[in-house]
This record gives sequence, C-alpha cells and structure tokens, in this order.
Amino acid sequence: MERSHATAAITAAAGFRAAGVHAGIRKKRLDVALVVSDRAAAAAAVFTRNLAVAAPVIVSREHLQLSGGRARAIVVNAGNANACTGEPGLVAARRTTQAVADLLGVPVEQVLVASTGVIGQPLPLPRLLGALPRAVRGLTRAGGADAASAILTTDLREKECVRSVDTASGTYIVGGMAKGSGMIHPDMATTLAFVTTDAAVSPQLLQDCLRQATDASFNRISVDGDTSTNDTIAVLANGASGVEVDAERPESVAAFAGALTEVLIELGKMVVRDGEGATKLIEIRVRGASDEAMALQVARTVAGSPLVKTAVHGADANWGRVVAAACRAHVPLVPEKLGVDFGDVAVVRPGFVSRFSAAAARRALERDEVTITIDLGLGNATATTWTCDLSAGYVHINASYRS
Amino acid sequence: MERSHATAAITAAAGFRAAGVHAGIRKKRLDVALVVSDRAAAAAAVFTRNLAVAAPVIVSREHLQLSGGRARAIVVNAGNANACTGEPGLVAARRTTQAVADLLGVPVEQVLVASTGVIGQPLPLPRLLGALPRAVRGLTRAGGADAASAILTTDLREKECVRSVDTASGTYIVGGMAKGSGMIHPDMATTLAFVTTDAAVSPQLLQDCLRQATDASFNRISVDGDTSTNDTIAVLANGASGVEVDAERPESVAAFAGALTEVLIELGKMVVRDGEGATKLIEIRVRGASDEAMALQVARTVAGSPLVKTAVHGADANWGRVVAAACRAHVPLVPEKLGVDFGDVAVVRPGFVSRFSAAAARRALERDEVTITIDLGLGNATATTWTCDLSAGYVHINASYRS
Repeated sequence: MERSHATAAITAAAGFRAAGVHAGIRKKRLDVALVVSDRAAAAAAVFTRNLAVAAPVIVSREHLQLSGGRARAIVVNAGNANACTGEPGLVAARRTTQAVADLLGVPVEQVLVASTGVIGQPLPLPRLLGALPRAVRGLTRAGGADAASAILTTDLREKECVRSVDTASGTYIVGGMAKGSGMIHPDMATTLAFVTTDAAVSPQLLQDCLRQATDASFNRISVDGDTSTNDTIAVLANGASGVEVDAERPESVAAFAGALTEVLIELGKMVVRDGEGATKLIEIRVRGASDEAMALQVARTVAGSPLVKTAVHGADANWGRVVAAACRAHVPLVPEKLGVDFGDVAVVRPGFVSRFSAAAARRALERDEVTITIDLGLGNATATTWTCDLSAGYVHINASYRS
Repeated sequence: MERSHATAAITAAAGFRAAGVHAGIRKKRLDVALVVSDRAAAAAAVFTRNLAVAAPVIVSREHLQLSGGRARAIVVNAGNANACTGEPGLVAARRTTQAVADLLGVPVEQVLVASTGVIGQPLPLPRLLGALPRAVRGLTRAGGADAASAILTTDLREKECVRSVDTASGTYIVGGMAKGSGMIHPDMATTLAFVTTDAAVSPQLLQDCLRQATDASFNRISVDGDTSTNDTIAVLANGASGVEVDAERPESVAAFAGALTEVLIELGKMVVRDGEGATKLIEIRVRGASDEAMALQVARTVAGSPLVKTAVHGADANWGRVVAAACRAHVPLVPEKLGVDFGDVAVVRPGFVSRFSAAAARRALERDEVTITIDLGLGNATATTWTCDLSAGYVHINASYRS
C-alpha cells in the first residue's frame, strides 16, 4: 500500500485515526506517530527478550497489566530509543504517555508507548511533548500514512499491509505498519510493528493470536542477528465492525489469526527487504525435516549466515556455504541426504551430486526475491525464514550510524 | 615471525622439516604444504563440529585412531576444501595420504591430511599427487616458511608463532602456523592450525593439553560466525629435545600447556587480525561475571555482533550496541550494573551514567587493536574473546569468492 492511497493501513479499520508529525528528534523526517482508537480497544503486545529493556517497553507492559489489556492510543517516536537511559528515561516515557492521556482525556494506562533510534542518549522530552498537541489535532484516517512514515529510522520506505476478512456476520479489517531496518533478529517480537483491527476480540484471545502470529512471522526474520532493546508488536482491536472473534467458534479464531499472521508476515518481509543495505529478499525454505523444530533451526541458521548472504549478494551459486551453514545448526541432519535449490535450479542432490547450469543458477540469484530450498531428506516437516543479502551498504550505514 | 627468518615456526623445533610447493590447485600461489617429523611423533588433533565433515578430517581422525596417536607427516592443500565431495572425496584424501606415506616410507596411518578452500568441488587429485614428490624432495627446515604460505586462502599474510620453554633438563620449542580468514567461529578448533614441538609428550597428554589450549584460544575467536567444515588443529611432539613433559610432574605439564596456549592464542589473534576485510583486531574483555561461563557467553555474543563490529570499523563510540549485545547473551546479567570501556576511556558506568570525551573515545577506536572491556559488576570471573571489525571489504571478498 502506497502513501498516496486515501486510507493508510493502520487506519484502514473503522474507528481508528492517526497522525505523524515532526518533533525535531530527527533532523528533518517525521519522528512522532500517534494512533488512536475512538473507543477503548482490546490490546495485546509482545516485547523484546533483550535484558536491556527500553523504558517504553517497561511502561507499555505495565499499562497493559494495569488496564487489563485495554488501550486507546499508541504513541511512538523515532530518532531515540530511550534505552539504557536509566530512571530519567523511565520518567520520560511515563510523562509522554501522561501527556497523550491528558490531551485525549483517557486513562494513562490506556496509552502504550514505543521508541526507536539511538541507544543510550537522553530522550529530548521537551521536543516530544511540544509536538503532541499538534499530533492530537492532526488525527485523521488519512493521517495513518504520516504515522507509517514517522516510525521509520534507517528504513528507505514505509511498511504497511491490510487484509479484510469476510464473515457471515460482516467484514472486518486487519491493518498494520512496521519499521526496520537494523538490529533485526528473531527473539520475540523483532523491531516495531503495530496492527489495528475493527474486529471484536477479547484481550486474552488477542494476546494468544498475536503470540502465534509473531512466532510465524517476525520471529522468523533476520537482518543482522542483533536483537533490539525496543522490540514491540502491539495490536488494538476495537470491535467497530461489529464482527466478533469468539473463542467458542474456532473458525472465527482461525480466520482472525490467519489474517493477523498474513499481515505480520508481509510486514516482516517488508522489513527484511528494506534491511540495512539489502538489495534482495531471501526466503529460506526447509523441507524434509524430522520435525518443525529441526526445520526452523536449519532455516534460521542458514538465514543468519553472512557467507550465504554475501554469496547471494554476489549471485554466486556457492551451495557449499548453504550446506556448511545447515550442518552447523546443531540438529541431527545427515549431510549426504541434503538437497539444495536456488530458485528452481537444483544445485545439489543427495550424495553431493551437483550438476547444474551456472548461468541458470546465476539468473535465479540475480532476482529481487531469491528462494533457497533445502531438503533434509528425513521427514515431512517444513519451515520458512526470511533474510536479506549482506552488502557493503550495511557496513557503510552502520559504521557511521550516529554521525 | 617473518618469512625472511632463517628458521620458520613450524620447523623451529628440532627434527622437523617442511616444504611448500605449487601444485596448480590455486592459480599462482603455493598450495601444498608438507610437514614431516624425522621420527614418529606423538600426535593430537581437534576437529570441526560441523556435521558436514570434510573428507580429510574423516581420514585424519581415522589415522590418529589406527596409529594410537603417532604421526610422521601432515599434508595440507589450499584452494579446495574437499568437503561435500562424497565418496570420491574420501578416496582422494586416502590416496593423498598413501602417496605421502609411500614417498616417505612410513605407515599410511602416520600421515595426517587437511584441506582448505572452496566447498563442493572435486579435489584436482592428479595435480596434488603430481606435486608431492617435489614437496618431499624440498623438505628442509627453511621450508617451513613456504609451508606457512602454502596453507593460506584469502589470508593476506602468513601466521606463525614460536615459544621456547626452558626447563631444568633442557629447552624445547613450540612452534605453529595457521590460516584464516573466513568461516571463522568458535565451535571447536576453528580453521587450520599446525603446531610442532620437540618436547616428549605422550599422545594422551598431548590431546589433553591441546583441548585445553584450544578452548582458551581458537574457540574464542570469531570473524563471521560461520563454522568451517574443515577445522583442524594438529600438534606433533617428537621428543627430539630430550625434554619430557610428564603427567606425574604437573609443573612440566603446566609449562607445556602454557606455551601451547600462548602459541595458539597468538595464532588465533593473527587469524582474526587478518580476517576477511578486517582493518582492526578487537579484544573483548569481560570481567565482573558470576562465573566464567557467563563471562565467556557475553564476550562471545559481543564479539559476534555485526553492529558492534561495524561501529568499531567506523570508530563510532556507540556503547549502546555493546550493551544491547551483552544483554541478549541469555545470561542473567543486570543491565544497570554494566560498565563499558573503549580502550582506556570509560564510556558508560553503572546506572547508564555516560560522560566521556568523544575525541578520546574516537582515538581509542581508531587504533589497530581495539579493546572493549565490559564489567558486569556481579562477581570476579573473566573471559576474553577476539574478533575483527566488519568492513565493506568482507562483503566484496565474499560476494565474489569463487569468481
């Protein structure tokens, strides 16, 4: 979904408005996003497992507990992660949510907060607070596009995705936005993503569906193996569509969880495709595993291999690196049973038989989206992960991130 | 030790000769090394834990078992890893050791073999076999310098180190050579390294000392997180000095293990300093841990962080990345207790107090050898690991490795 669309993803569901403004935390780009539900919504979130938990994560987690899983608003700033900032950082996050609560006239525990940007520098709170009235005045459905822009850091483009779900009792929308694009590695919710829906879902069911969707999406992407201090995925479900997702009706849960998973997978793939320095999306498909845990472990290890990522960057059909990475995944696979395809080109088959057209393999690796399929030849379990190629651009971006 | 020295490291101990020749596996550079002990030597080795074990690793492991830990020679080729090559690869490795055994007139099980280079391509056996007579004819003590050169792949320079140990009963030498410089990650012996000594050591004691020395050296270095299929460290102890290392005299064992560890640490640091694209050696020192396992886990995680490695490359004092990496190490540290120094500049102290001279921190990060010290503030345990910075050069090398 492009910014030119009339309705942005995060405000595609009924009863949501949003805004993105420039507070001056970043030099020029929009840096504060606000998403508001017109009514109290069920809220669920998953957070980073990094021990150095950023202040906004601590505050959002507290608020979800205090509110019993209800929220009216999410406020996000880019340009400063408010992580490793000690007690002053915690005070700053609390004052941010209080200011939003006062401006909207809602209880403070119904305001969630997230931050992204540089770690270990004081949040410029006066600038942030000074921008909030403008953000509240600017809340519209169209404002979702600015919100999607305002949460970005080194991202090159907005990441938005919408699905609509038709049911016997009506249609509801699931729409989300995310940001990348460094410190991305699957260890819970990775990076920041926000989803709104006008389905009616209980907080507990929403949390269950989010956990399941996250495990199948953001926990399967990796840009660089570094897990952020600020990872947050939050979902608001305000029920404005009148369609209920009911734990007693499993098909309603499956439909909602499916749509949520689809949105998060699409957003996750957008994060990877726009990974720092990335020129290609790489999908690692593992099949033929004894069980899903084995498949996932192999898929993650290959996705994390810098030698695989640089080979794809150079369109070099170096299947030995794929085999070597798979074989250090600490799972009981049998090297001689491995098969590897680049796109639709079979580059190696069991017994390390390797006869393929170098030109065809190069064409498969020169595509914008490269698929590497690894067949373990042991069973029927499968798993897929996503990563990006590793380019000199990644180094250039991160050697001078703060300059 | 430079190649211009009269005696190279691998032949510094008495009773060893070596040669390095060009077999044509690589285009121009020397690509076959041979190291021979004049008498049967005690032999010990540690090998890769990657499941895709290269053929030479399989054969060397067999030979050590058959010979009861005795060896006369090590033959090494660069340019082709003979990994993922199936049964033909195994045959090629066996025929290589048989040819060396025939030329030297020693039992085949006393010949060890190692290979390094591209994975999954047939070893050009005729070229290798054709070069072996020349290698045998060329065996001299001075030939150790050519041997150190012939085991290299993407390395820019030879890696050699010698220590002499004075004892009441005489002096002995421990000398080694290693190669880098990609697919380097601590999971057992990393990459290839060979050590000779004229101390007299039993095979079992030699194996124990090697295991201990490897855990303190090569298992603590990382260039890129990828574990090779060919990792081998082998030690030959031929007793030519007449000095015995005796399990009954712990001080003799400590002296030998200490010298072996020093040699392997120096070689390991040379591997990292010459890591693909590396411009700096980074030493990660963790102190104040509850136990050594915790210290080592944190030191390894920080050493493996591409964001830390790129920040050092750019001399960017981004301590938040160090804290974020330490805090995802899956150990129970307390983020608020962390202290981080870049060189001798304290960049953060407990409670995330951070006041430092940006110019001084930049100077500390612009050195050829950068030290990052992380104090966990919990106990007295320490650990050190070594890595290199991540540069655009790494990408350039690996995007076109086979071209």
